[in-house]
Amino acid sequence: MDYRIRTDLALEARESFPEDDVEIKGVILTEEFDEENKIRVSTVVIKDERGAKAMQKPIGTYITIEAPELTEADEDYNQPVSDIIAENLLKLAGDYTKDEVLIVGLGNREVTPDALGPYVVDNMFVTRHLIKEYGNEFKARNRLGNVSAISPGVMGQTGMETSEIIKGIIDETHPKLIVVVDALASRSINRLNTTVQLTDTGISPGSGIGNNRKALNEETLGIKVIALGVPTVVDAVTIVADTLSQYMEKTGFEENEINQFVYEIRNQAMNNMFVTPKNIDEAVKRISYTVSEALNSCFAQPV
Amino acid sequence: MDYRIRTDLALEARESFPEDDVEIKGVILTEEFDEENKIRVSTVVIKDERGAKAMQKPIGTYITIEAPELTEADEDYNQPVSDIIAENLLKLAGDYTKDEVLIVGLGNREVTPDALGPYVVDNMFVTRHLIKEYGNEFKARNRLGNVSAISPGVMGQTGMETSEIIKGIIDETHPKLIVVVDALASRSINRLNTTVQLTDTGISPGSGIGNNRKALNEETLGIKVIALGVPTVVDAVTIVADTLSQYMEKTGFEENEINQFVYEIRNQAMNNMFVTPKNIDEAVKRISYTVSEALNSCFAQPV
Amino acid sequence: MDYRIRTDLALEARESFPEDDVEIKGVILTEEFDEENKIRVSTVVIKDERGAKAMQKPIGTYITIEAPELTEADEDYNQPVSDIIAENLLKLAGDYTKDEVLIVGLGNREVTPDALGPYVVDNMFVTRHLIKEYGNEFKARNRLGNVSAISPGVMGQTGMETSEIIKGIIDETHPKLIVVVDALASRSINRLNTTVQLTDTGISPGSGIGNNRKALNEETLGIKVIALGVPTVVDAVTIVADTLSQYMEKTGFEENEINQFVYEIRNQAMNNMFVTPKNIDEAVKRISYTVSEALNSCFAQPV
Amino acid sequence: MDYRIRTDLALEARESFPEDDVEIKGVILTEEFDEENKIRVSTVVIKDERGAKAMQKPIGTYITIEAPELTEADEDYNQPVSDIIAENLLKLAGDYTKDEVLIVGLGNREVTPDALGPYVVDNMFVTRHLIKEYGNEFKARNRLGNVSAISPGVMGQTGMETSEIIKGIIDETHPKLIVVVDALASRSINRLNTTVQLTDTGISPGSGIGNNRKALNEETLGIKVIALGVPTVVDAVTIVADTLSQYMEKTGFEENEINQFVYEIRNQAMNNMFVTPKNIDEAVKRISYTVSEALNSCFAQPV
Repeated sequence: MDYRIRTDLALEARESFPEDDVEIKGVILTEEFDEENKIRVSTVVIKDERGAKAMQKPIGTYITIEAPELTEADEDYNQPVSDIIAENLLKLAGDYTKDEVLIVGLGNREVTPDALGPYVVDNMFVTRHLIKEYGNEFKARNRLGNVSAISPGVMGQTGMETSEIIKGIIDETHPKLIVVVDALASRSINRLNTTVQLTDTGISPGSGIGNNRKALNEETLGIKVIALGVPTVVDAVTIVADTLSQYMEKTGFEENEINQFVYEIRNQAMNNMFVTPKNIDEAVKRISYTVSEALNSCFAQPV
Repeated sequence: MDYRIRTDLALEARESFPEDDVEIKGVILTEEFDEENKIRVSTVVIKDERGAKAMQKPIGTYITIEAPELTEADEDYNQPVSDIIAENLLKLAGDYTKDEVLIVGLGNREVTPDALGPYVVDNMFVTRHLIKEYGNEFKARNRLGNVSAISPGVMGQTGMETSEIIKGIIDETHPKLIVVVDALASRSINRLNTTVQLTDTGISPGSGIGNNRKALNEETLGIKVIALGVPTVVDAVTIVADTLSQYMEKTGFEENEINQFVYEIRNQAMNNMFVTPKNIDEAVKRISYTVSEALNSCFAQPV
Repeated sequence: MDYRIRTDLALEARESFPEDDVEIKGVILTEEFDEENKIRVSTVVIKDERGAKAMQKPIGTYITIEAPELTEADEDYNQPVSDIIAENLLKLAGDYTKDEVLIVGLGNREVTPDALGPYVVDNMFVTRHLIKEYGNEFKARNRLGNVSAISPGVMGQTGMETSEIIKGIIDETHPKLIVVVDALASRSINRLNTTVQLTDTGISPGSGIGNNRKALNEETLGIKVIALGVPTVVDAVTIVADTLSQYMEKTGFEENEINQFVYEIRNQAMNNMFVTPKNIDEAVKRISYTVSEALNSCFAQPV
Repeated sequence: MDYRIRTDLALEARESFPEDDVEIKGVILTEEFDEENKIRVSTVVIKDERGAKAMQKPIGTYITIEAPELTEADEDYNQPVSDIIAENLLKLAGDYTKDEVLIVGLGNREVTPDALGPYVVDNMFVTRHLIKEYGNEFKARNRLGNVSAISPGVMGQTGMETSEIIKGIIDETHPKLIVVVDALASRSINRLNTTVQLTDTGISPGSGIGNNRKALNEETLGIKVIALGVPTVVDAVTIVADTLSQYMEKTGFEENEINQFVYEIRNQAMNNMFVTPKNIDEAVKRISYTVSEALNSCFAQPV
């Protein structure tokens, strides 16, 4: 079963194990389902190195919020989805919600499926400069959190590693928590623009739909990092390989034949090709708004 | 061999016949290759009903211009590509270039791969109103053609068939030739945003990446129609089916097994999913500019 | 008092008469004020030729809705403003709300203060094609109005008069009412992007912030026309002339001296210069949304 | 003569002195005029504190390049304008052109007249990451400069001072020269979007069309700073005050009467109102492209 293709979602990594009902050693999966709003929250906790190796993800907590009706439902549906995101952010952020928080929107504003991070930052209610000018009494009276935000752009636009830019800004402005927002690649078309993954492990190198990013996590940045990701694309290679390997399994191929086939597809001209829904522009704008509302309610006006 | 999946390119319909070197009855294929600029021009002429049936396209001429280096080359490369498009437009338009021409940009400006038509119209040099105001002497002195242009939007935006809008405008403004510009679906990733198809058959129902459009052709509109299309997407279903059927052929499956498989894929959740390159926003803008330059030189300032 | 500078708002034309409390013959002014929401509705009825001459506007009804807090207030404030616009639209539209309505968004999408019309059309809930496909029972069951919409672009983009395009579309699609949405020029900075004028007189030639438009009214189009306008700019000439003539009046200049001065300013390089607030992009988007909600509730889902 | 209203252009500060032909002590003005391309280059050197006080600008060199035909001329005209900007940048930058350079685009991408900086950065050819990956030999072989670039956004978007962000990035990435690009306010409508000011004094507090920015200069950032500014707006107050005070002077008012009047205008509702040409979106995009070409040729591919 080593023909698995990379996914940025821990939930999908977990799903790719055939033994659905058997616990993988070192990995705990729990689920909740909100009947009324059709929102599923799955929590994968990778407890130790064994689990990390099996899942090919760092040790930590991964919360996946799936709201499959988000792209079709009316505007009122944003509210419950945003509420559940905020609630789960709070689980990871704890008391940090009342501390200085820097929201970082990764990705390239000019490439629609990669523009989630910048779009979220565009909608953030930033307060740091207000508190600096009007003081802590103003902060308390208005029950504000202390939020700053930036969309640094990608390396091809800036010539700099995102980690360099963020480190520099941290050293000058001293936030206590960083929330990194990024577009992800998923295996499943059904999860595109309707799913949010929260994790306290940061963004690992090679994740995201852009490549070559250096890790942004507590180890490299020196402060707590929460990553919020939304799958906006499926790699074309993934979808072809997944469809075909399902079919080959069904028709009795051997595992090594399937692996060989997937290997061949990977070397075809499908690199840098993505599968997206036709309404990607609208779908990314919508989930970006939902995410920014969650971040605003969690950090700019914390309870 | 009936598992062929729809393509909007006549060239691809032709390629799907295995007997590459045998003439299909009623269809003539000729090719030219510009070594210096790496531009290939393939002309498919469907001469009669036999050919039309074999190709599943109306009788007429289909010129395909392939400039595979367009997405990567520097800006100077736009010029030779635009020149070759203009030269082939002239073959189809003949003396109409000096007559009143209406350019219609089909598609939805808000959906990047479907925005080609509106982007082209944005760059058109329109002259009809100038000639109306300053007269034919002004037209002659400045060697202008008579160009008007419109991006009507898609039915989901207007509540009207594009054909209704265009017919109404024709009745009021009396152009002699319509050039319809639209984004197409291709089978081949390599052709995306680097290929232009010109045809004198108009746009057939169901073509284009949006659906349910009524035909825009000489029969329905009452005046000569040239369609200019650029493939900007591959259907996700197509790419999966193509890759798999190639593989199945290679590994000795029977045709009916392959057809069965393709049929199954089609019924999966891949509808309305498209494969695009990551730089789709930039790529569509670039080819739109190249196309608009060709239209401007052919119609706004005809030789 | 002939140094008055053109305004597209009947209310401002009325205000420019010094005798505020005296009725101008042939013109009736009434006012309502919504205390809670700080929204003022002023209705100017020009009854006859005498009034038309005094006001330099055609005979008809002009309703001006002023919501000065619109640019600053939070999102909840859109609702009451939109409700009052819809209520006043209903006064002008009467039973036409249940008939076929075509919304026309005038203006140039690429020029922010002129993009109001296209932005409003972007947000319209069009239903005509649905009713055509699913029939009148579907319309009745869902309590839908019959709405189509188009943003034709301006003459510099299309080479056609807007009136030619609209006439052509009317002849093909047979709406019973046209609502024309356009950006206007105001005299007053305070009204920018916070004021809506409704009128049953259509758009007069030379109105709007773009020039040279042929009239769109019942006489030229053959069906009832309602115009909805929002001032988004003040001419730079107007603001300079207004400020200065106020000052000159205060300091005792003669009327002919003031007129001479205004005449001189008009011939300076201020043509095609506009005064806008710095946040014009955001302000136009906001009022466009409010207007489109009013149109949707009045025509797409009429009571 | 103290009713002068702030301008960001040293050239306009100089022009406001009536004694055109007399040298102001401590200030040297030289001019060149390119007949063929109609481009004027004026250099103001403020040599000492006396000059600084008279001009209300810091000691340093201010080069103003005026290309009045830029907004109307065809695309070929970009080249000579861009060449002259590059040539004058070189005078200020000297050997730094071959060193590490960070281009900073100030301003708010969402507010058209303030978007110049971000637009310029969008067009920058960044090379720093390439040199880091492929080494100095690669740099030499391709004759590249070492360029990085960022558009940090404005304080209302980030909650951080721009100076904090830039300082942090400098400390991590160690550029030797910073070029700060920003939109300016001018006094003259004729200079909008056709004029470029270069200076080695950085951006002074309160400059730019956004407010409250802390200074970005050699003193605060610790490395050499060149500021490149383009006037994109005139304050509405300025244009009214200028027009009127000219008129009042002509008609024999006393200086104190004029000052009193200007003072009154300033307190009116014209704050945050700007005068822009109608085609501001297009004009800012055009000059942004011209500026980015100049920066690219000066720093990314230095001679």
